[in-house]
Amino acid sequence: MTTAAQAPAPAPALRGTIGDSEFDRDTAVRPRGAAEPGVFDAELSAGWTIISAVNGGYLLALVGRALSEALPHRDPVTVSAHYLSASVPGPAVIRTELVKAGRTLSTGQASLYQFDENGAEVERIRVLARYGDLAAQSAEVRTTAALPDIPAYEHCLSADSGPAPIPGSSAIVDRLRLRLDPTTAGWAVGALSGRGEMRAWFALADGRDADPLSLLLAVDALPPTAFEMGLMGWTPTIELTTHVRALPAPGPLRVSITTRNLAGGFLEEDAEIWDSEDRLVAQSRQLAGTPR
Amino acid sequence: MTTAAQAPAPAPALRGTIGDSEFDRDTAVRPRGAAEPGVFDAELSAGWTIISAVNGGYLLALVGRALSEALPHRDPVTVSAHYLSASVPGPAVIRTELVKAGRTLSTGQASLYQFDENGAEVERIRVLARYGDLAAQSAEVRTTAALPDIPAYEHCLSADSGPAPIPGSSAIVDRLRLRLDPTTAGWAVGALSGRGEMRAWFALADGRDADPLSLLLAVDALPPTAFEMGLMGWTPTIELTTHVRALPAPGPLRVSITTRNLAGGFLEEDAEIWDSEDRLVAQSRQLAGTPR
Repeated sequence: MTTAAQAPAPAPALRGTIGDSEFDRDTAVRPRGAAEPGVFDAELSAGWTIISAVNGGYLLALVGRALSEALPHRDPVTVSAHYLSASVPGPAVIRTELVKAGRTLSTGQASLYQFDENGAEVERIRVLARYGDLAAQSAEVRTTAALPDIPAYEHCLSADSGPAPIPGSSAIVDRLRLRLDPTTAGWAVGALSGRGEMRAWFALADGRDADPLSLLLAVDALPPTAFEMGLMGWTPTIELTTHVRALPAPGPLRVSITTRNLAGGFLEEDAEIWDSEDRLVAQSRQLAGTPR
Repeated sequence: MTTAAQAPAPAPALRGTIGDSEFDRDTAVRPRGAAEPGVFDAELSAGWTIISAVNGGYLLALVGRALSEALPHRDPVTVSAHYLSASVPGPAVIRTELVKAGRTLSTGQASLYQFDENGAEVERIRVLARYGDLAAQSAEVRTTAALPDIPAYEHCLSADSGPAPIPGSSAIVDRLRLRLDPTTAGWAVGALSGRGEMRAWFALADGRDADPLSLLLAVDALPPTAFEMGLMGWTPTIELTTHVRALPAPGPLRVSITTRNLAGGFLEEDAEIWDSEDRLVAQSRQLAGTPR
């Protein structure tokens, strides 16, 4: 087991902070104002694409930010997202709804739309979510979940360690400081494990620390577990539900993804995210289509 | 490990069938017709309550049936439900929306409402779901998920085996043929395991076989794992997402529920359901509030 302290910090000159970073700028949402309450304009950046598709975690973080601004509570606690059509870089609009305001939790819904050739809105993703205040949570922790056994940061693989780990050009690689556990990156070096596992160190490239919104990115930012099962290709997310379980401490995250059942044309991906203080800060599960 | 064949079949005289059973009658929905497309009336039965609250799995099955009737596809594939307020036995209305019709999958949304003293609708549960055709799925199965190790049916505990396993009067006990693995029912017999695990044989009391809709009930029908961690009390479901992974074969189900992280006032419950042919037919995860 490796502690986060072994991971080198990025160069201070490039360092992003929460609120002033590449991630914050690219997930910014602009409220349309009093005439259209709960409606936000956004621009999907080409910087978070895998080949030509906008990453599903980035999209979720963007919708998550709109809900964070629209709801009485600020932090995502449980977020269920259904992916309806593939997003492309360019303008988007997010329409939010306050479903129910509660004392400790509020429920909201949001959809992100882009535009067809006639300017009509096309829905890309629809989200149902409960928001709360993670800083106000009880400090009680009783967990049997075990920290993933990931080698030290310097022994893990970066995007340029292997022979083109991700096929095609993927802009998102430059946004992330992703270091893959070599025992789960056999697909990149020609020695498949055959197991549905993927583990990595995760940070944003400019060193911005994690917050609940960037956790929504991190749950869907690793290569698909299907790669390690010998199934290269597009693994479209159908539905992705994330539980943010605690405020992440500063420092790099460890992400562990497991697939236990690939069947009937679908597979699930369970992600766990651990912070630098060895705390389980997020759990997610997605249902995805099996690569063909 | 035990095979389903060891579980005794219910007496044929009482036997329900899919479409003609207690479960089907109590989850019936009546379309309001052409004037209000996608709107269904229903009656929440007092037969599926735990103490005085309507069981969340029963509610989900009822909303799931409305979506099954409203959408172009019939079978739930992934269903995310947010629980907004506690349901009570009595009349309800379900409003469905076809979000997107696809070739192999369709997306729908539904809300179930009851009525306040002035007759105004109060939302109980909101659901986002993808429906498909499970019989048309690819036959490919690659799974590392392991069948739960549950003792033979006759060595498991029924509701009347222990000293009042569920506190208070719970009508749902009579609707189910639930047999708890004694190693996870320490709370009922005064010998807590302390582990967040709950396992059981599950069938409907009248012997009706499982279908995708009854799986939506089964994922939330066992006692809370928190009981086995020494936390007795109400464990309110906040969000519950279920993936139906295959059509269940006839015969009793085995349900295994695990909690790995109780923290910050919340816990997750991961359920797996296995059919009589040892196939993983459903996976679910819920976020619930910790009993106080």
